[in-house]
Amino acid sequence: MPTAAAIIIGDEILSGKFDDENGPWLIHRCRALGIDLQRISIISDDVETISDEVRRSSSSFDYVFTTGGIGPTHDDLTLAGIAQAFEVDLYEHPELSGMIRARMGAAANSDALRMAMVPEGSELWYTEPKRFPVLVCKNVLVFPGVPKYLQAKFNDIAERLGGEPKSMRRLITEQNESEIAATLRQAAEQWPEVSIGSYPRFETTPHTVIITVDGRSEPLIEACTNWLAGNLKTKQT
Amino acid sequence: MPTAAAIIIGDEILSGKFDDENGPWLIHRCRALGIDLQRISIISDDVETISDEVRRSSSSFDYVFTTGGIGPTHDDLTLAGIAQAFEVDLYEHPELSGMIRARMGAAANSDALRMAMVPEGSELWYTEPKRFPVLVCKNVLVFPGVPKYLQAKFNDIAERLGGEPKSMRRLITEQNESEIAATLRQAAEQWPEVSIGSYPRFETTPHTVIITVDGRSEPLIEACTNWLAGNLKTKQT
Repeated sequence: MPTAAAIIIGDEILSGKFDDENGPWLIHRCRALGIDLQRISIISDDVETISDEVRRSSSSFDYVFTTGGIGPTHDDLTLAGIAQAFEVDLYEHPELSGMIRARMGAAANSDALRMAMVPEGSELWYTEPKRFPVLVCKNVLVFPGVPKYLQAKFNDIAERLGGEPKSMRRLITEQNESEIAATLRQAAEQWPEVSIGSYPRFETTPHTVIITVDGRSEPLIEACTNWLAGNLKTKQT
Repeated sequence: MPTAAAIIIGDEILSGKFDDENGPWLIHRCRALGIDLQRISIISDDVETISDEVRRSSSSFDYVFTTGGIGPTHDDLTLAGIAQAFEVDLYEHPELSGMIRARMGAAANSDALRMAMVPEGSELWYTEPKRFPVLVCKNVLVFPGVPKYLQAKFNDIAERLGGEPKSMRRLITEQNESEIAATLRQAAEQWPEVSIGSYPRFETTPHTVIITVDGRSEPLIEACTNWLAGNLKTKQT
């Protein structure tokens, strides 16, 4: 199952000017595709910060998805940050600058053409011929910050990412977490291939704990879930 | 203005089992309090991952807020991660274990008492005597993952954080970002103390760009906003 990190780039999110829609969307899309999204960072429009985050994530995960910071204004620093992370220069990509000129005509000034200045070694992933391609620098896929454009582009290339959907079972108990902790720990040790979560819910009366059993092997998930159901006072949902 | 990072700890968020409510709440609360939240990370329940993130954030920001991972079950690893980040051991804090025993009575088993195992050198910030205190390890404030408990505890100690609210002005233009980029860059160079953002909105017709001018100095914000208004085709909002 491929692993991934998402880097949401934008002071406008951190300062509360706009709500982040991209993190939640990527979480649900990755789950459906079977991509193991292991980290999301929301960071500032700052070349040093972007570069550090890209470098660390690129070496730890199969894919890194960035969103935001790729327009023509002074606060659009994602491509500079990625170039710095990989210690390469930015250069004008002829296919991209050609597309910008074709689309904007005389309005394609030097600021518009900054959007074609990409890190050396970048590839373009084309899928839908009418749309701009997705820029890929090593294992970093660069997406726009505008949610509807991010979503369209991500869906265009989603099949190439090679995900494998996981299965999950849920149990619910009215026992409290301290009572069930020893049993859960025992199950976690016995089935290291599955992932067991425990989530108290205080909005219901009586309070309940939701127990989740996640993984790729259906027989192991089933064995672990059945064992837990036999050793706790639960109902399966 | 104090800076801060938030670390949201929980596989349940990354895997899409539960939506994160804590990141968005902290963004808006920090904005209102005048705390400069510069980073949010959503990370896995893994001691190594928590430790790395805490160590890096603790040295870069005035405050670090963690949420989640402090219950009694095997997936609650926040305190172990913080201890590892600061290279200290966990020890049973007598005030905390006393409170857990007083509250739970005979049900305070060794798993419940794990919640009193805290990094050496931790402080307890008390405010509301009826509630559990907030655990503070160096500059890391440890909050629960359950949104209503996080919110109550954060509000209890919010005044101690010493924030200074920022001001913001907004302008709207129907010019596109490439047309206005040079003017925005010039303003950013002329007023380095203010922060200028540019956000295209595609859900309106005609498309607009929202320009924000942020900072702590009212006169500088006003001067910059007026200059932009005079040099772009804008309306102030």
